[in-house]
Amino acid sequence: MKYEVITTEGRAKRAVMETVHGTIQTPVFMNVGTVAAIKGAVSAEDLENIGTQVELSNTYHLHVRPGDEIIKKMGGLHKFMSWNKPILTDSGGFQVFSLAGLRRIKEEGVTFQSHIDGRKIFMGPEESMQIQSNLGSTIAMAFDECPPALADRSYVQPSVDRTTRWLERCRKEMDRLNSLEDTINKEQLLFGINQGAIFPDIRIEHAKRITEMDLPGYAVGGLAVGESHEEMYHILDEVVPYLPQNKPVYLMGVGTPANILEAVDRGVDFFDCVYPTRNGRHAHLYTNKGKINLMNAKYETDDRPIEEGCQCPACRRFSRAYIRHLLKAKEMLGMRLCVLHNLYFYNHLMKEIRDAIEGGVFAMYKKHKLEALAGDNGE
Amino acid sequence: MKYEVITTEGRAKRAVMETVHGTIQTPVFMNVGTVAAIKGAVSAEDLENIGTQVELSNTYHLHVRPGDEIIKKMGGLHKFMSWNKPILTDSGGFQVFSLAGLRRIKEEGVTFQSHIDGRKIFMGPEESMQIQSNLGSTIAMAFDECPPALADRSYVQPSVDRTTRWLERCRKEMDRLNSLEDTINKEQLLFGINQGAIFPDIRIEHAKRITEMDLPGYAVGGLAVGESHEEMYHILDEVVPYLPQNKPVYLMGVGTPANILEAVDRGVDFFDCVYPTRNGRHAHLYTNKGKINLMNAKYETDDRPIEEGCQCPACRRFSRAYIRHLLKAKEMLGMRLCVLHNLYFYNHLMKEIRDAIEGGVFAMYKKHKLEALAGDNGE
Repeated sequence: MKYEVITTEGRAKRAVMETVHGTIQTPVFMNVGTVAAIKGAVSAEDLENIGTQVELSNTYHLHVRPGDEIIKKMGGLHKFMSWNKPILTDSGGFQVFSLAGLRRIKEEGVTFQSHIDGRKIFMGPEESMQIQSNLGSTIAMAFDECPPALADRSYVQPSVDRTTRWLERCRKEMDRLNSLEDTINKEQLLFGINQGAIFPDIRIEHAKRITEMDLPGYAVGGLAVGESHEEMYHILDEVVPYLPQNKPVYLMGVGTPANILEAVDRGVDFFDCVYPTRNGRHAHLYTNKGKINLMNAKYETDDRPIEEGCQCPACRRFSRAYIRHLLKAKEMLGMRLCVLHNLYFYNHLMKEIRDAIEGGVFAMYKKHKLEALAGDNGE
Repeated sequence: MKYEVITTEGRAKRAVMETVHGTIQTPVFMNVGTVAAIKGAVSAEDLENIGTQVELSNTYHLHVRPGDEIIKKMGGLHKFMSWNKPILTDSGGFQVFSLAGLRRIKEEGVTFQSHIDGRKIFMGPEESMQIQSNLGSTIAMAFDECPPALADRSYVQPSVDRTTRWLERCRKEMDRLNSLEDTINKEQLLFGINQGAIFPDIRIEHAKRITEMDLPGYAVGGLAVGESHEEMYHILDEVVPYLPQNKPVYLMGVGTPANILEAVDRGVDFFDCVYPTRNGRHAHLYTNKGKINLMNAKYETDDRPIEEGCQCPACRRFSRAYIRHLLKAKEMLGMRLCVLHNLYFYNHLMKEIRDAIEGGVFAMYKKHKLEALAGDNGE
């Protein structure tokens, strides 16, 4: 793995990361395909067609269905879903703490109930690494606890300390797994995750400790889970300077286009979020003049594309009126076209951001873009 | 419109039909897109990629949503759904008689309740032609009554007589509409429909009467609605010889691959059926060795495509194991890939049939194909 910062503007970084599954141009938005499929009938082939660089899959979901052993048997996640570019897998931790049923946290890990069939599952750092190794993703995320954004210091500090100890165990286990003969991706990369809720001192202290471990990349986790945007930006202002400048920084689960612009401005270069897919499935569409709700009656005979000039598979061919009709008639094609548009919008936004940083005009670009995105689409 | 029989083998016809929206090579399978969309998130672009020649939309469904006036305002169905090849619309009759709520048949037409909002709608021959003219389809179907397959003679005879009178009114109204200035497709073609349930004499008498009207094409309706396959083949044996040889013959709503082979052998050259889409959505997949149910546990780690050598978008890239996983996880992508495979299978079957007739080997091809299709896919 090689990560090289090509240029910077302020704290914004324009970088290139080489992986065993190909090159990633950053800042990058990773398209979320929870169970090895993008919700909205979007395939790996579609992702290629809308400029996706990195696909993100969820370890917890794939562990419970179809099972990571099955995927390993099928040659790993890349082969299974027919995607030959980089894949990042999360650790399963977030889902264990947010989605699973009754759970018990101990030093060893977490015991919880599957949301599919209620069966008891244990997951600790070693299990998370083993599952992600079975999946063979390009980048594996450390197993951490993501404490609630508004948790007390008295809860957060011991949680973060445990997350640090878990990170040591993750690294050790990943080193072991990467050295095994039958491992799918022997160059799997481990990213550490910074936690600490909205306490800058805990965040900074943690950032220093995990930076010492010299991992290939670092994420800021536990944001966009209840705190305000301003609190999130403040935490980034405080903590990103303590993460290595010459390594990728990933802001997990973020966010709106405005969030991304602000975070890039604070040195972040990896993003992921379900907004484009989830909003697309609900007819909420991103445009460069603000969001539109395609279910609105005023689009009934609107023969324009979702956004004039957009080169996505929906806008190149279909009208607002047609897509609205499909959504009203509950035809899956409507959701598919909306999701394709929104993902294209996000991927294209990242390209604009990269170009702006390269051209040394990111500050101006960001200002104008934020104004445009806050618009009402000329309506 | 020009229809030319290139070659025949027995009663099987290999023909070419020129329309204002392009050429149709027959025998042809029309892909059903009820509300101007193929169920399973399949777009007009996808149809092009799987070799679809004709799309079929349902007049009744489009009349109630989004409304044919809306579609006319959008420039017609071709522009609305972005499909520039031939489209056939049914008359709405079948849905009125099978899908709508309480209904009353009179000489003028049928009063019924919308299945969407229960409002009262009247549809007769003129209304059906007006709606189909608003849609601007390539081929419009006559408004008929499709009596139940097992109805009494005493019901069927007067029903068929009324259908004949309705056909006269359809023709007159279509001639009028095609001459209007703002009509979308002034060369819209009207196909008559033969009815008569399973009474050969009523069918033949009706075929003679509608053939005298010298319409651009004829359909055999009211089959595959309850009678046995043998009865259906028998009716075709009896009635097709009384339809003009130099015009296209369309067997409505049929059927399985075996049904199609048998009907081609009896002189039919147009088909449509919801089987490939409906079966695809339920994981029932066509192969040249028989159907498979992809939900079966034995496919859990099967890394072969649905069918070896198939050039459909699903088989070119994805494994049975992956598609099965998607279906189990209720990911829309699973349904989409299955529908694409099944439609490709049907379109490809028709190509094989055309090639076989052209090569003068249809009888042999049919025999071997029927044997293969009845297989258990080697399992």
